[in-house]
Amino acid sequence: MVKAGILGGGQLGRMLLQQAVNYPVETFVMENDRECPAAHLCHHFEFGDIKKYDDVYRFGKMVDVLTIEIEAVNIEALERLESEGLKVFPQPRILRMIKNKTLQKNFYQENGHPSSDFRILAEGEDLKQHQDFLPFVQKLAEGGYDGKGVQIMNSADDLSKGFNTSSLIEKLVDVKKEIAVIVGVDTHMNVAVFPPVEMVFDPELNLLDYQICPAILEEHISSAARHVALNVAKSFQSPGIFAIELFLNTAGNILVNETAPRVHNSGHHSIEGNYCSQYDMLWRIMLEYPLGNTDIIDNSALINLIGEKDHSGETAYEGLEELLSMDGAYLHLYGKKQTKPGRKMGHVTLLGSDVTDLLERTKTVKKIVKVVAKETVKYN
Amino acid sequence: MVKAGILGGGQLGRMLLQQAVNYPVETFVMENDRECPAAHLCHHFEFGDIKKYDDVYRFGKMVDVLTIEIEAVNIEALERLESEGLKVFPQPRILRMIKNKTLQKNFYQENGHPSSDFRILAEGEDLKQHQDFLPFVQKLAEGGYDGKGVQIMNSADDLSKGFNTSSLIEKLVDVKKEIAVIVGVDTHMNVAVFPPVEMVFDPELNLLDYQICPAILEEHISSAARHVALNVAKSFQSPGIFAIELFLNTAGNILVNETAPRVHNSGHHSIEGNYCSQYDMLWRIMLEYPLGNTDIIDNSALINLIGEKDHSGETAYEGLEELLSMDGAYLHLYGKKQTKPGRKMGHVTLLGSDVTDLLERTKTVKKIVKVVAKETVKYN
Repeated sequence: MVKAGILGGGQLGRMLLQQAVNYPVETFVMENDRECPAAHLCHHFEFGDIKKYDDVYRFGKMVDVLTIEIEAVNIEALERLESEGLKVFPQPRILRMIKNKTLQKNFYQENGHPSSDFRILAEGEDLKQHQDFLPFVQKLAEGGYDGKGVQIMNSADDLSKGFNTSSLIEKLVDVKKEIAVIVGVDTHMNVAVFPPVEMVFDPELNLLDYQICPAILEEHISSAARHVALNVAKSFQSPGIFAIELFLNTAGNILVNETAPRVHNSGHHSIEGNYCSQYDMLWRIMLEYPLGNTDIIDNSALINLIGEKDHSGETAYEGLEELLSMDGAYLHLYGKKQTKPGRKMGHVTLLGSDVTDLLERTKTVKKIVKVVAKETVKYN
Repeated sequence: MVKAGILGGGQLGRMLLQQAVNYPVETFVMENDRECPAAHLCHHFEFGDIKKYDDVYRFGKMVDVLTIEIEAVNIEALERLESEGLKVFPQPRILRMIKNKTLQKNFYQENGHPSSDFRILAEGEDLKQHQDFLPFVQKLAEGGYDGKGVQIMNSADDLSKGFNTSSLIEKLVDVKKEIAVIVGVDTHMNVAVFPPVEMVFDPELNLLDYQICPAILEEHISSAARHVALNVAKSFQSPGIFAIELFLNTAGNILVNETAPRVHNSGHHSIEGNYCSQYDMLWRIMLEYPLGNTDIIDNSALINLIGEKDHSGETAYEGLEELLSMDGAYLHLYGKKQTKPGRKMGHVTLLGSDVTDLLERTKTVKKIVKVVAKETVKYN
């Protein structure tokens, strides 16, 4: 049996392991939390810090193939492991490039992928020199995550709140829609492109409201999105799963925002919504089986279950009974013992051929399911 | 989180745990093999003999709800645990009754379920006294399993090969089709009936060739099968999953053959083929959520992957690459390190709307996928 390691034991690792059950593979997970979502679902749990060279190197020596479920891993150790023959998905040089937003942005430009204009700022550089570039987004070169390390500058007044460290500024895109396309690349550089997913944001809260697949796009735009994502994934020249986040701007152009070189939140729906899920696809790639069929079984919507604001403590769930009485609703909880505001605690996938009905049910799910801290849960 | 125990760590436990990942449940497995298919997929693996009173009692004291994945468990311990407040699915009295084929047969008769005529034989009773009942099947009252403990008596010449222990003889049914219907019963005695599955046998080998869902039946016969299965399941008056095996005889009548009071091979296809799988359904029942939707997503066929004859030893698989290049083919391997002739090593589910095409692909799968012992596997 192939020995496969996953760096990180969160929900992405958990769902990868759920799919690994079907294949002849011996699974290893490294995380510095023995109660993490993936800890109990692998053959071998290794306690360790995935950011530390020694821990990652030791872990890599146990396995035949290795993947990540988060970018914040020790890349030097992965590079040494790769030089010693380990198959790493994606290749460490891709992780290194993607982890640094400046390098990533340069890569898109050099490879001719459409992307917003940008400038690179050295540490301590005065933002005011770039007033002519307004409006723009400033991003930390390294260390930004889930909206942290990103600042929108609409006018000269905003410039004082900018970062002083190494960063880049990107022209603000007049975003009509945010789209993600997941692409699987196998070791022979064959590719499989999943149908585009649309991220719909709550205009008041400015938070992801839900995702819908396929994205509601004119055919030529959907085709352009798939084409751009395919080109980006191919240009990495590395096997793996790539979630390519795109903007559709108001002029009707597709621009690359950024790439996650791993299974991704924008692909959760594929477990039920597509013949082959993103998790299945990554196993096929790592175990060197043929790529799977990315066609949808039905339209799907995905709602993240996020820890309620003002709720920190032992996790409890509200509304599961009502949710599970709905047809075509699939619950996925991540088994996190502690909830806190904004933490990703699970998701719900809805299937249905009627998109209007799907969106109505999305609202219902958001209304009924809550992740709260235990003392406040209603008894039922 | 609810603490849920599974007695037995085989493939049924494995697939139950694969589905448990989605729910807020802490999982426990008892088996006397630390490398069994389910051992690495639970929160807590307990080494023990599920046939021993002390082991089962100890295990039951760790959990809030308990189920089985095989009937051969210590029922006395389950009865004591139940009397002390543990929720057991199914209730131990049902296990006790079903485990004894004489009691089971009596139960069907007493509850008015259609079933073949039978006679009960005491230990040492002379089979020749029952020549008038020929042709018939003799079954051991207890201990028969997977075709063992069952003898077909077509003529007086066969009687000498009969068993001498406590048994029953059943009139041979002129079987046109073998059908299984899975029924879920929740703690409020609500029921959910899965569409009938047809078991198709290889006429030469007299072995299960494949299963197809829904069974190919005239509507009134399909309806009768569901009706009979529903009545059987209801009459148990116990929550749980029940796989009710039925005969359609040449006269067009549905007869109950026997019941497995647990998730069952005849429901494997429901993972991909139905909106709610049998595994999902059992978790819904044990965790007291609403029953799921048993409708099919698409027609499905199921092929068991059985250890090749003349192959004993470390498991290897042939043909997986070709299988995984087929559209709508889902592989499930059970992770058994040793193969032997006839051992259930995995299964393949095929989805497809065109039944003729589905049956063609079934033949292809049987031709290409083989489970062999390692030394003989072809290098690819």
